[in-house]
Amino acid sequence: MTDISPLAPKQFPEISPVSGVRFVTRGVGVKYKDRTDLMVAELVEGSSIAGVFTKSLTASAPVDACRAALKAGKGQARCMIVNSGNANAFTGKKGSASVERIVTAAADVFNCTPEEIFTASTGVIGQPLPDSKITNALAEMKDHLGEADFEAAAKAIMTTDTFPKAASKTVQINGVDVVISGIAKGSGMIAPDMATMLSFIFTDAKIAPDVLQAVLRDATDKSFNAITVDSDTSTSDTVLFAATNQAAHDEITSYDDAALSDFKAAFEELMIDLAQQVVRDGEGASKFITVTVTGAENDKAAKTIALAIANSPLVKTAIAGEDANWGRVVMAVGKAGEKADRDKLQISMGGVMIAGEGEAVDDYDEGPVAAHMKGQEIDVLVDVGIATGKATVWTCDLTHGYITINADYRS
Amino acid sequence: MTDISPLAPKQFPEISPVSGVRFVTRGVGVKYKDRTDLMVAELVEGSSIAGVFTKSLTASAPVDACRAALKAGKGQARCMIVNSGNANAFTGKKGSASVERIVTAAADVFNCTPEEIFTASTGVIGQPLPDSKITNALAEMKDHLGEADFEAAAKAIMTTDTFPKAASKTVQINGVDVVISGIAKGSGMIAPDMATMLSFIFTDAKIAPDVLQAVLRDATDKSFNAITVDSDTSTSDTVLFAATNQAAHDEITSYDDAALSDFKAAFEELMIDLAQQVVRDGEGASKFITVTVTGAENDKAAKTIALAIANSPLVKTAIAGEDANWGRVVMAVGKAGEKADRDKLQISMGGVMIAGEGEAVDDYDEGPVAAHMKGQEIDVLVDVGIATGKATVWTCDLTHGYITINADYRS
Repeated sequence: MTDISPLAPKQFPEISPVSGVRFVTRGVGVKYKDRTDLMVAELVEGSSIAGVFTKSLTASAPVDACRAALKAGKGQARCMIVNSGNANAFTGKKGSASVERIVTAAADVFNCTPEEIFTASTGVIGQPLPDSKITNALAEMKDHLGEADFEAAAKAIMTTDTFPKAASKTVQINGVDVVISGIAKGSGMIAPDMATMLSFIFTDAKIAPDVLQAVLRDATDKSFNAITVDSDTSTSDTVLFAATNQAAHDEITSYDDAALSDFKAAFEELMIDLAQQVVRDGEGASKFITVTVTGAENDKAAKTIALAIANSPLVKTAIAGEDANWGRVVMAVGKAGEKADRDKLQISMGGVMIAGEGEAVDDYDEGPVAAHMKGQEIDVLVDVGIATGKATVWTCDLTHGYITINADYRS
Repeated sequence: MTDISPLAPKQFPEISPVSGVRFVTRGVGVKYKDRTDLMVAELVEGSSIAGVFTKSLTASAPVDACRAALKAGKGQARCMIVNSGNANAFTGKKGSASVERIVTAAADVFNCTPEEIFTASTGVIGQPLPDSKITNALAEMKDHLGEADFEAAAKAIMTTDTFPKAASKTVQINGVDVVISGIAKGSGMIAPDMATMLSFIFTDAKIAPDVLQAVLRDATDKSFNAITVDSDTSTSDTVLFAATNQAAHDEITSYDDAALSDFKAAFEELMIDLAQQVVRDGEGASKFITVTVTGAENDKAAKTIALAIANSPLVKTAIAGEDANWGRVVMAVGKAGEKADRDKLQISMGGVMIAGEGEAVDDYDEGPVAAHMKGQEIDVLVDVGIATGKATVWTCDLTHGYITINADYRS
């Protein structure tokens, strides 16, 4: 279970430091032994923050607290505190009290308001968080903050992840170089008794909080909201995006400012990169699958259909079996509930058209498709023949490994 | 893969014959060799029919034809023709032409209108149906119709099913005994390259077609629409319910007629029995799971939450691992999108309360729950603390067997 995913990147990527961000990690024994499980990111005074969170109605206490802080603090932030090993989810009033104690202690240590502290927790659900292990460590950790070590930070927030996930981009705003660097974790949407996709992204660009939030929300739809491992939604999913405002360009105060367009594009690419790394660490994954749907009524309908395909256990097991089973793709299109013209449906895998006009193509040559299915990167393209809506989502196959990780143990 | 499901009934049940229904089965080699694959059910003149079908937007040609016949024929029927081995789904214009040829030939042989013929097909998707094998057999089959052999009929329509499924009830309408007997098939919502849940139910009761349709629709919601194996929806799901009107009671022309209440209750029980048999033959199933949700905003919300739990791969793998993992149940409640009070949520398994008021109960005794999880019949009860809506759904666990059946082969 601790083997590195066969879909993992060959090595940890080059990550540029972000001016105004300092990290420190510690092993405080929330649950794990002999590894780090607590990450603190300090943001320079004057930093802004944006956040998107799980839509789960049973969201965890830290998610509730982040949402409240984002609103109360008007997008100002000084500190992120993230632990692995315990999700502090479904912990009732004890859970909220734990978050409050951490936030109060951190506001004291970092000399800021509680609304400027953002926490996230990932790990076991339903067990009280031993928050004193965290609060007791904060003062010493502050004294050891250093230039951002993204690899150490990415490792401290892992649960059943098999590799640390990070990405970095440099882009210009009004002729000034700015950096965007971030980390993520996630393996199953919920791993064995563990929870959560988390991502923390930093930039030194000077961007007003409401613009930052809009940039984050947009990119989330095309990245973290376009991946699925097993269709299960965590109680704790959290993406925080902090801008330290250290770059020398003028502040961007409008989402539509043309100066922001390269930044938006780079940020979306970085978010997609991080999201794809989460899929590449999907529990038991042996193949990385790109599902593109075109010809839908609109982009939203295309995404619904693409996710129906990507979440279908029968499609995912077929791909695990290296079987270009387009009948199962037809089935998934049908159950998605969005308009599709059965008799115009086109399905390609690995760039080869398998079915068109409602039936298998006459001269279908299985050879190149069979070869494609043996690879690690599988492409499925479906045109549903209605209009011009399109969407791409990413997933992994469903293998014995997933069952082994999630069933073959007793908690 | 041909081992009988461990959840199968000990023996084929006693099935009462239905006056006015005659069956015949043959092996015509649609795809399989050395087994029956064609079933014809003849209904006496004056029989009524009701039908419910897949909501898939890529429905198969036979489903399209049944829907049209039901409308055009005003609920009259003389004959059902069902083949296994080929689903005649995603077969384009060829598919509709095949159905038309079968219907035309059958109307000729059975001396009735095309609207009185109902066909269903289950098996491979995307391959043209060799319909001449069916049409050529019809005349000889008609000469050998006999008193209904439900076991033979149930076997002829099996694909990857590991046991034939049937159920029977006798009930009174206005003091007159009437019989309801039916068969079903289904294993995965789509088995390897095969499709479909099918069920054919017969009664000698005298019930007007629109009432029959209402009775069927109601019971379907509480039976076949309350089961899930893998959340995948077939292109061919079909339930047909025929009344031969041979019983001596006065015709029932109103759904609200009090004389129908025992019949409705018995029919719903029979439908639930058949639906549960489909789950008990779920691909790779080792445990039969009953999920009951109470305290929801309304019954529909309760069913949505119950299906979110029953479809969650993480809940299903946890149960396969005999793990009473209530954290995953919390997660599934949260993603269902229906109102739930996180801090009032109660979860019981095997009748033992595990979590209440938003956290694990203080004196939780794992012993009896662990013993329950080792059994074959698992009960999960969730109260979401909002109002009085309730629903029960049935599913099976997700095991290595499912992956083996669906991934470990090349078509």
